[in-house]
Amino acid sequence: MVSTEIRVRYAETDAMGIAHHTAYLVWFEVGRTEYTRAMGLPYRQVEQSGTRLVVVEVSCRYHQPARYDEVLVVQTTVRVLTRATVTFAYEVRRQDDQTLLVEGSTVHAATDSGGHVKRIPEVVAASLTGTGRKTKG
Amino acid sequence: MVSTEIRVRYAETDAMGIAHHTAYLVWFEVGRTEYTRAMGLPYRQVEQSGTRLVVVEVSCRYHQPARYDEVLVVQTTVRVLTRATVTFAYEVRRQDDQTLLVEGSTVHAATDSGGHVKRIPEVVAASLTGTGRKTKG
Amino acid sequence: MVSTEIRVRYAETDAMGIAHHTAYLVWFEVGRTEYTRAMGLPYRQVEQSGTRLVVVEVSCRYHQPARYDEVLVVQTTVRVLTRATVTFAYEVRRQDDQTLLVEGSTVHAATDSGGHVKRIPEVVAASLTGTGRKTKG
Amino acid sequence: MVSTEIRVRYAETDAMGIAHHTAYLVWFEVGRTEYTRAMGLPYRQVEQSGTRLVVVEVSCRYHQPARYDEVLVVQTTVRVLTRATVTFAYEVRRQDDQTLLVEGSTVHAATDSGGHVKRIPEVVAASLTGTGRKTKG
Repeated sequence: MVSTEIRVRYAETDAMGIAHHTAYLVWFEVGRTEYTRAMGLPYRQVEQSGTRLVVVEVSCRYHQPARYDEVLVVQTTVRVLTRATVTFAYEVRRQDDQTLLVEGSTVHAATDSGGHVKRIPEVVAASLTGTGRKTKG
Repeated sequence: MVSTEIRVRYAETDAMGIAHHTAYLVWFEVGRTEYTRAMGLPYRQVEQSGTRLVVVEVSCRYHQPARYDEVLVVQTTVRVLTRATVTFAYEVRRQDDQTLLVEGSTVHAATDSGGHVKRIPEVVAASLTGTGRKTKG
Repeated sequence: MVSTEIRVRYAETDAMGIAHHTAYLVWFEVGRTEYTRAMGLPYRQVEQSGTRLVVVEVSCRYHQPARYDEVLVVQTTVRVLTRATVTFAYEVRRQDDQTLLVEGSTVHAATDSGGHVKRIPEVVAASLTGTGRKTKG
Repeated sequence: MVSTEIRVRYAETDAMGIAHHTAYLVWFEVGRTEYTRAMGLPYRQVEQSGTRLVVVEVSCRYHQPARYDEVLVVQTTVRVLTRATVTFAYEVRRQDDQTLLVEGSTVHAATDSGGHVKRIPEVVAASLTGTGRKTKG
């Protein structure tokens, strides 16, 4: 599990005075980026090597709202890995009292840069589950 | 079922050259706005009368990508209505060939303007299911 | 001058209860897209033919706020055209009372798809100023 | 001058493969938030005490693009302070080679929470220019 701090931006709030529900999906994406960096193979490099992890499913439950300037923590982990898909799970908490704000998950399919489905390359799969990193030790 | 046309904006695309997955949730929201207007009680008026329909759950499946300047159609309907929640369902299609791009649903809880959960007022419930409109006829 | 209708989305509002100031720049972009379509050479085709009009300057003055669900009109025109740049100007008005909300302009440089500055192709320049369309008549 | 680190999010890129030009204005806003925090009076508290600093003017020049996952530094300062307005200036640089990507400025008018123009309260003015902090020393 990889933790990433996020501070709610004014632009992310809406007329209800709280963070808009789409902001959490952007923060999940930031969480994924940091997860892959922590695992030793940043998503930027995954893309540069010709693999995209395209979002094919999103699911999200909102428990409590977040407000402008609050510091949140996104906890990101990989829950399922198949030949061609990976499922990330997320929890977003308010940092100061650890209240759980939102839980969610995203499923991604591997494609080449032309958008055609393919298997997840072994080096990517290994880094996503942390087995790649362990092997190095 | 209420249909709303959307044209993909450049700002909604990402470095994959396709509409970012969060754009669909914004389009769902546009679909809801138009659904409530078509049912005779625009969401703006619902809020002004002291009821908010806060997003508590989102789920979304992505089948095909959308690209800049394509015209899409969001079909919005109410699937479930309980005392305190309403569930909307959406389908997003490319207009020119009717390809199904994305399906999703959102669950909303009714709150007052202070964010406290409450029952959905009868006039709002009636308009959401169309029974309010029929009564007028 | 080309007019485009925009309805303010909930996602475009912020905690002040008004449209966030960045939303207008997105609407300018929508205005440009519709301007180029009205002139007979949609920006999508400009890009497909290998020319990008990259934003190099933005300037914007905000007079009055816009609110959720209001219908706005973006008026877009080309103010200056040089060999390698084009300047668009915009006015955003509230539709129902024609109040001027925001004025702005954007300067764009022509580049190839690799991002290298180049001259604006003659067919693009002609369509931007409407001289291309006139020639057809 | 207050420096703030920003990492470019995937959601902030567009189909050109670079950060969308509106992203910089959001980063300016983050820069302002951090500027006010560094000066001892976070903007959140300014708003809570009944003063809003509404954007009335934006201007921005784009020199070089930013890409997904790059770390940028936003340098924020107050350039002009009048009775009822404050002008912030910004420079955005790529962190690793200090290349200047974007320069900009925003002008803000003070209003009460109802949106009516007012003078900037003395405590806010002092914190914006740093004279408040110095006084404490």
